[in-house]
Amino acid sequence: MSLIALTLGDPAGIGPELVVAAWQAHIAAKNAPADFFVIAPPEVLLPMLEAKGLSARILADPQTLPEPGDTCLPILDCGSYSGFEVGKPSLASARIAWAALETASTLARAGKVQAIVTAPVAKANLHACGFAFPGQTEFFAHSFGVAIADTAMMLAGPELRTVPLTIHIPLQDVPRSLSQEHIIRQARVVARALARDFNITHPRLAVAGLNPHAGEQGHIGQEEINIIIPAIGALQAEGMNISGPYSADALFSSAQRKRYDVALAMYHDQALIPIKTLSFEDSVNITLGLPIVRTAPDHGTAFDIAGKNQACPRSFLAALAYARTCLDNR
Amino acid sequence: MSLIALTLGDPAGIGPELVVAAWQAHIAAKNAPADFFVIAPPEVLLPMLEAKGLSARILADPQTLPEPGDTCLPILDCGSYSGFEVGKPSLASARIAWAALETASTLARAGKVQAIVTAPVAKANLHACGFAFPGQTEFFAHSFGVAIADTAMMLAGPELRTVPLTIHIPLQDVPRSLSQEHIIRQARVVARALARDFNITHPRLAVAGLNPHAGEQGHIGQEEINIIIPAIGALQAEGMNISGPYSADALFSSAQRKRYDVALAMYHDQALIPIKTLSFEDSVNITLGLPIVRTAPDHGTAFDIAGKNQACPRSFLAALAYARTCLDNR
Repeated sequence: MSLIALTLGDPAGIGPELVVAAWQAHIAAKNAPADFFVIAPPEVLLPMLEAKGLSARILADPQTLPEPGDTCLPILDCGSYSGFEVGKPSLASARIAWAALETASTLARAGKVQAIVTAPVAKANLHACGFAFPGQTEFFAHSFGVAIADTAMMLAGPELRTVPLTIHIPLQDVPRSLSQEHIIRQARVVARALARDFNITHPRLAVAGLNPHAGEQGHIGQEEINIIIPAIGALQAEGMNISGPYSADALFSSAQRKRYDVALAMYHDQALIPIKTLSFEDSVNITLGLPIVRTAPDHGTAFDIAGKNQACPRSFLAALAYARTCLDNR
Repeated sequence: MSLIALTLGDPAGIGPELVVAAWQAHIAAKNAPADFFVIAPPEVLLPMLEAKGLSARILADPQTLPEPGDTCLPILDCGSYSGFEVGKPSLASARIAWAALETASTLARAGKVQAIVTAPVAKANLHACGFAFPGQTEFFAHSFGVAIADTAMMLAGPELRTVPLTIHIPLQDVPRSLSQEHIIRQARVVARALARDFNITHPRLAVAGLNPHAGEQGHIGQEEINIIIPAIGALQAEGMNISGPYSADALFSSAQRKRYDVALAMYHDQALIPIKTLSFEDSVNITLGLPIVRTAPDHGTAFDIAGKNQACPRSFLAALAYARTCLDNR
């Protein structure tokens, strides 16, 4: 059986509430086999579980999971607990988040887990601790020896899958960050992952233009002509079912969405605006191109509402559901 | 009574079908008073009307409109007809489109019409004829002696109103096209128009960031800190109900949309992606800041389907409905 590890995220944020909500959803599903466990210091979760009339089982080995019907949350201790305040991100809370990631990575590399669902972390304190990666995606890519350019961030919701080809960079840096090579490399990652993880053997990729109206034949910008169209041509020559560039404003309409399996966007908001406009609470971040499945909710640590029972777990539960689907398809 | 002029647009495109569809909708509404007429060479419309069992009344003066129940489409001849081929944009078809705009402008400046609904034109042939404006919006701004920076393009649909502060420019030119002055000037235009045309006396304006996550406190770009936040502060100091910058990906979710009357976007696709994702066929382009009301559908000439009875008139009918609403509110 495939096993899924949930990492706690920054425990000063809403991560602890999310993993407990996932376990409550598991209990509510009645007699389903436990296919996941949580990587966290038990000190963080035990008081929360107790307050809800639940308990935990501390795992020595992640392969001994509870029997169906057992309501004890399986926890694998990642250590690094030295106290922290809920709602107040700190070096201490960031160290816990990091420790959970390291444990997850070690288990995945040893073949003991096949998927990781990560709760949100806060980057500033992680970096202050010495965490050397821009984010969790880059951490896992490095763990598995995969070049970051051979991974891709897919946002998936009930109505749309989309991949931004540039991510957390200033808008003014986007045009110079695009190249034929980059688009080609990312499109290959996406097409392979759709076949492997989503069981779409000949996926249809639609590519957005960078400029308004996809540049209007060069009247509003040259990147379509110089970069995007040649990249699409090269990929078509490989036999890929890819088309574009399409005017980004029309690409995400309901009629257009029926014509592709995934939209490649040129920058962060070109992908994130439509996915969050269509389905704010049910969309999921999936890292494509890793040897394991990795999914995450499409939101941050939400320190402002942490510990107040206000966190909406829908995106985290959707991330867990996507991890199961991808494992089933592999 | 307020009068609305519909301009034909490029007659080689779907404009003729749109204005006839508007008249058919008027007839179907039974006994409604005719509050609009069409500016076009009768030669273009008469055969289409005849094919549908309808006829026309050629107006000498736009103030003599049909009585309720009369099914004859009122047409004001703008001249310039020299033949053209449907589906084939040409200098001849562009000259007709231009003539209709000139007639509409003349009537509006003389106080004979209070609103103009424009069918789509094609810019390349207009420019080849000598039309000296980037588009219809700039033509009307110039006609009324209004600086283009004192007009704004609002996209309005059933679920969202949004104004892009830069429009048809390459994405790489967007950051340098933004300034505090420009944001302040545009926000004032928008706030005044919402009060005058939409009867929202103290409108709530929400401002999008330029960069991913609205720049994350300067970690992903500086424009929020250097330009957008000071502009918002200056407008708040004037008493405007304006806030932001908000992360653009979250700004258009259903929960966020309830918190503002209009979203100011920094560039074309930041505004157009959410409006077209939410309501592709019912969104409308409204020029704010003119002495008259001017609305237009949110699509182009569609030469490829012209004359085939395939054009969807919903956006054009919505543009006519918005024109009526704005006139009622003035």
